[in-house]
Parts: sequence; C-alpha cells; structure tokens
Amino acid sequence: MERTVDRINLPLSQVRLWDSLMDLARIGALPNGGNDRQALTDRDAEGRALFQRWGEATGLTLTVDRVGTMIFRRPGRDPSRKPVAIGSHLDTQPTGGKFDGPLGVLAGLEIMRALHEAGIETEAPLLLINWCNEEGARFAPPMSGSGVAMGIVPEADILATRDLAGHVFGDALRRIGWQGTADPAALREIGAYFELHIEQGKRLEEAGLTIGVVDRALAQIWYEITVLGEEAHAGSPMAGRRDAMMAAAALIASLEDIAETAVGEGGERGRATVGVLKAEPASRNITPGRVWFSLDTRHGDTAQLEAMGTRIRARADALAAGRGVTIQVSEFWRAPPTPFDPVLVDRVQAAAEARGHAWTRMPTAIYHDAVYCARAVPAALVFCPCHGGISHNEAESITPAWAVAGLEVLADAVLATAGLAAPRTGPA
Amino acid sequence: MERTVDRINLPLSQVRLWDSLMDLARIGALPNGGNDRQALTDRDAEGRALFQRWGEATGLTLTVDRVGTMIFRRPGRDPSRKPVAIGSHLDTQPTGGKFDGPLGVLAGLEIMRALHEAGIETEAPLLLINWCNEEGARFAPPMSGSGVAMGIVPEADILATRDLAGHVFGDALRRIGWQGTADPAALREIGAYFELHIEQGKRLEEAGLTIGVVDRALAQIWYEITVLGEEAHAGSPMAGRRDAMMAAAALIASLEDIAETAVGEGGERGRATVGVLKAEPASRNITPGRVWFSLDTRHGDTAQLEAMGTRIRARADALAAGRGVTIQVSEFWRAPPTPFDPVLVDRVQAAAEARGHAWTRMPTAIYHDAVYCARAVPAALVFCPCHGGISHNEAESITPAWAVAGLEVLADAVLATAGLAAPRTGPA
Repeated sequence: MERTVDRINLPLSQVRLWDSLMDLARIGALPNGGNDRQALTDRDAEGRALFQRWGEATGLTLTVDRVGTMIFRRPGRDPSRKPVAIGSHLDTQPTGGKFDGPLGVLAGLEIMRALHEAGIETEAPLLLINWCNEEGARFAPPMSGSGVAMGIVPEADILATRDLAGHVFGDALRRIGWQGTADPAALREIGAYFELHIEQGKRLEEAGLTIGVVDRALAQIWYEITVLGEEAHAGSPMAGRRDAMMAAAALIASLEDIAETAVGEGGERGRATVGVLKAEPASRNITPGRVWFSLDTRHGDTAQLEAMGTRIRARADALAAGRGVTIQVSEFWRAPPTPFDPVLVDRVQAAAEARGHAWTRMPTAIYHDAVYCARAVPAALVFCPCHGGISHNEAESITPAWAVAGLEVLADAVLATAGLAAPRTGPA
Repeated sequence: MERTVDRINLPLSQVRLWDSLMDLARIGALPNGGNDRQALTDRDAEGRALFQRWGEATGLTLTVDRVGTMIFRRPGRDPSRKPVAIGSHLDTQPTGGKFDGPLGVLAGLEIMRALHEAGIETEAPLLLINWCNEEGARFAPPMSGSGVAMGIVPEADILATRDLAGHVFGDALRRIGWQGTADPAALREIGAYFELHIEQGKRLEEAGLTIGVVDRALAQIWYEITVLGEEAHAGSPMAGRRDAMMAAAALIASLEDIAETAVGEGGERGRATVGVLKAEPASRNITPGRVWFSLDTRHGDTAQLEAMGTRIRARADALAAGRGVTIQVSEFWRAPPTPFDPVLVDRVQAAAEARGHAWTRMPTAIYHDAVYCARAVPAALVFCPCHGGISHNEAESITPAWAVAGLEVLADAVLATAGLAAPRTGPA
C-alpha cells in the first residue's frame, strides 16, 4: 500500500495521511463508522489537541484567533512574502463522516510533515488552518471562523451566537479552552489559499474522474415560504377546504421540474431543496392552517437562478389563487456566484494534468471555507471523489487512492505558489 | 329578539340560551373572540363551576365521575325507566370558538330550565352531561369522558395520560378539584343519548339548511407514513438524489385526487388530511433523509375507504420504486362506521319536520361524544350550521336562529323519548 511521491522530492506518505485520518476519527467515533466532533464540544477540543501535538511535532508554530480558528505557521525563506495557506476544518456534523473537513486539514499536515522530513523550505511562509465551526451544526451560521476572518460575518455576532440549548458561542469556546487572542482579520493578508475537500456529490465518481478543479461557487438564493390556509376538521369535505399542507405539497412537487428545466451554460441545471417544513397546528385531524418551509435554490448561472425564483413565485401565485390560500415567498439569504482565482485554479489543473489524474473543471454548489476565502483573497478548491456522493452521513467514504490524488495536487499547487527554496539539509 | 317556543308548552328561551353561551365565553376569552378553556386547566374549572351554579339553580343534582365527567340528574316520574341523556362538552381547543361543545351542553341546560320553570316532569329521568376532555387538545386522546364511560378506552389509561409538559391527567384533574367518585360505567345504563353540535363543515349553510339529521359516523383509517431517502447536500445535482421530502410531497399531492375519486353510495366522496409532518435532519441545506407524516382518511363507505388505502399504498410503491426511496405506510388507528340509533334518528327528523326547519340526513365525518355513545347505547346527533364551516378557530360563529332551531329539535326529540308527564303545577 505504501506509495511515496517523488515529485519535487517531497516524501508524501499515503499511509501516514490515512493513519492520521483514522487516528483522528477515533475521537467522537460513532457506532456506524462516522464521527461526532461538533464544533465547541469536548470532542472538538480532543481533536484540536491531537492536531496541536501533530503540528508541534512537525516544527509548526500555533496561534489561535479570537473565534477559535487554529493557525499553524511554517516560516518561509522570504519573510516579506505573503503566506500561502492550506486549510479546512476538523469539526463534523452530529452524524458526520471521517473525511468532510479532516481530509483537507490532514492533507495539509502531510505536506508540512513531508517538507519537515525532507528539510525543504519554501520562499513564502506556509499556514495550515483548522477553521472553527465550518459545519454550523450546533452553532449556526456555519463557516464561523472563515466568515469572521474574511470580514463577511461580524466577530461579535459569531461570539454571541447561541445553540438550541441557549449556550453562547463565546462561552462554549472558552469552556473548551480554545479562544485565542489573535485577530481573525490578520488572515486577510494571506497571499493564496488552497483547500482540498471531498466532492460531496457523485459527479467525479460517476464519470470515473479523480480530481475536481473547482472554478467557482454557484449562486444561491434561500427562501422562506409561508402558506396560510384555513384549519378545518379532517371530517370536512375536500371541496371547499383551504388546506395549507395540500397547497404546500403541490408547490414542493413542482420544484424538481423548475430546477431541472433551468438549463444554463454548458447544460448546467438548478438545484432546489426543501430541508425544513413546519405545519400548524400539527394535529392529525385538522387541516393545517399554516405551513412554513425553507427553500434553498442554487445555480451556476445567476440569470437562471433568478428565473427559477420567478417560476416559483408564479407557481405559488397560481396555487394561491386556485386554492384560496395565501402563499408568501420571501427571500431569506443570497450568496453571489463566487469565482476562484484564475491563476490558482490553472495551477491546480496543471498539477492534476502533470500527475496524470483524470480531472474536470466544475463548480461547487456547496459552500466551503474556501468560498468565503475567495471573497477576500486569491483562493482555490480541489475536490476528490467520495463514494455515492454520500456525506454528512456516517457512511461517508473515500478510497486511499482518491485521498492521495488530492494530496498530490494540493501539494504541487501549494509549492508552485509558495516557491521552493533549495534544501539546507538532505532528505531525512 | 325574544322568541318563546310554545310547543308542548315548553318556554324555551333563545335569549337565555344565547346569554348563557356568551356568559360562559367570558371564561378563557381570547382577543379574537374565541375561547381557551382546555380540559383540566383553571379555565376549565371556572367554566365547570359556572355550569354547576346554573344546574343547581335549576334544581338538578350533580355527580362527577372518576374521569371528571359532570352529570346532572333530573328525576323522572317513573324511576324504573332508564334515563334520557343530553350531553356535549364545555372544554375547547387552545384557540377554539364559543360554540363547539358549549352549544350542546347549554341547549340541554335551557331544556332543563324550561322544564323547571314550567314545572313539567318527564316519565324517564333526564341527565345533562358535560363530558370531560372531548377535545383532547392538552391531553390526547380526545373524548376521554365518553370513551371511558362507554367502555371504549380503559379508565386507567386515561388517568395516566400525560400532556406534553409531562403532567398526568389524574393529577391535573385532582388539582382543579374535579375528580369525582362516580363509576363512569354507570352511564352505560342510559336509555337514550342526544347531542346537539355545530356541523363544523359548510354543507348545511351552503345548502340553506338549518338542521342536520346525523344518521351515522364515517369510518376512519389513520395512517403513519415514513419516507426514507438519503441526506444529500443542497448543492448536489437533482439527478441522483433520493430526497425524502420530494417523494413525500409527490405522495401528498396525489391524496386529493384519491379522496375525491373514491365515490361511494349517494355520490359521497372520501377525505384525506395530512395534519402533522416532520422532516429530518431539518437543515435548510440538506435534503431530508426521513420524512414522517400523519394521514387521516375518512369515508362513509367502508369499501371505498379501504380502496383509498389501496390506492395510497400503490402510489407510495410507485414513488418509492421510481425515486429509490422507501415508503412505509402503516395503519395507526381505525374507527368503524358507526350508525346512530334508527328510532332516535327518525325522532330527530320528525322534530325538524314538525318545527318546519329545513333539514337533511347526513353523516358526521367528525367524531363526537355521541359517536362513542352510539357504540354502547341508543344515540342520536343533531347538527346546526356554523358560518363557513369554521371551527377549532376563534372565528367560529353561528346565528341565534340556528342555535334555537337546534334547541327546538333537541328538546322535542328528548321529550318525545323521555315521555311527558302532566305538570303538577302550572307554568311559572
């Protein structure tokens, strides 16, 4: 199984990366193979402590910022150059997998270990970042660390966030001992940011590809939809009802078609997801008078995304008129389409080509810390496949070969950006 | 406005009935005209105390049974005859109206008052019953008092029922001071039971009718439906998703057609209601892996009701196969079609005809205490209209004319059943 990569003499170890992934996954291990290391829990603290030991054993210097992001630094030969950062997150969903997040952080660690072992210096300093609370599972919103660092979300707002039990983010962070003193905004001085992540979709696997060269993040519009009808006894005749649930079901049932027929450039289609739905008064024998649901729409083509919204509103209006109900479609949040840095994206693609990995350019429809970074600094995102596209799930899985492909591309792109200095000592 | 009814010299007073309804509605009054007198709350106790004062002022003798049902007794001239009972309930939904329940109890009280005032005796004893917890809003199941009395629900089960806050029915009943010592089963000795209730549907009002002669309760089957799909990120392409919400919406969207095309005898159609729906993991940007919902189906024709179930299962199977999800359709509860007593129903119809009220025979698709009673003793149910069929709602409303029509028919049917004895004294 062991396979070392001799390109630029960097002794990347697939086995060491895989072992580290498995070692970390013992913290917060779940019965079905998954992990629960939700941000700001004791398990998160255990995971951070292990990562700290690994980083310090690799000669890296740790700082922690005020919102709990861990930043390891490796000096470069040219201290005047802006640092090149590698990052992702070690926190997980409540029933998450072993790879969503940790792969990117521990691939970065493997690069640091190989550089350390080989005694290789880079021109630019390197950073290895574990962003705080990427998942947002316990404390919403997600991507707390990168959001504050990149100036997208106010620091005070994040620190004041409460979980469902009423605990405050800042208190929880101090309780686990991981609130640092560094200014999160200091990371806006990064010269280039790279992140490796599992795809969390099936596209690469189904096409037999190993690397996704991510060139942009899709635009998103999130809606909140409220259907107001009339409560009626379950014994009342169907004719004359103003049942908010039946109206909501008819609207939701139309969304797949609206997403699939919103065809943009290159044949790309939209996405529509109803993740949360609440019906009131929630009695088995009363037609709901009020149904509220969330709607997440995404598209690579902003015009198509807006067109989806127009069709959804038209469908809602038609249903409302036909059923004597009211349907309010409110925009809740939107994210612009976010391009990654063209130079860094080309560098990722060149690395995939040079390594002989089958690759494709693709958008990410899922937000990552890299997307927030891309709004403030040059950034790139690399995908490797995951089985069946399954993630946020204990069954999330990848092959060691996929992991190492991602590692190699990440390493080459990072080192091409940071610049290699000649080794002062020979390989270990 | 005052209008006395001179039939059989019974001085029924529309004004007194209406004033009593309005007086009771001051207890637990809500801002939009409705009432909150949920069973076993302090407001319920206040309503019971007012009713007790009214009943005792009318010469009635109160007993309370072990599950909190209030039973007023008026002696008959022939103590060997089984009592003729009038009943309904004073408890309401959390945002209920003024008439769902109270109309039937206070119409019974008005009959007792008129008899008292006129010094009229009946051959059979009369009972006036306020059933405990008909609504089941705080403590489910509903119809606790009549269910226990008629031997349908075990007394111990009802007393052990908990509300969502964990309070126990029996404790709550003692706390408000309304647990009596009478054996609920004693009510199975009733010779005939009559109940007046608002229709809670639009059929009478839309047809310009004043009285519903209810001849049977529809059969019901309640299902629990679980859709198991796969959680996926909201960014994943629509193709390949196994979204439990989209499958559930497609199934729910088919229910109206299934109910409307289940045409039974006399053109009667089915009913289908999805009142409760829960999606997991309930995250805006994850396709639900699990959606659970309740389904209440009703039909007057048992074969059509079963056929609806067959079509629902077939549709679920087709959706499951087409979408790669699992759909479990489980029967949760069923109630048989329940005929009311043909003799008593004819008596109600004759009273409506004799009074010149426009009437129709109709089923009830909604359960009432009368339906539980009909499973153990001869029983009949009289409907009067309510505006727009709105009930379980603060906006519930009726006209005084509808109330008095129901009162007259109820009085005539009750007295025809109990038998009139000549007055010992003249009218007051």
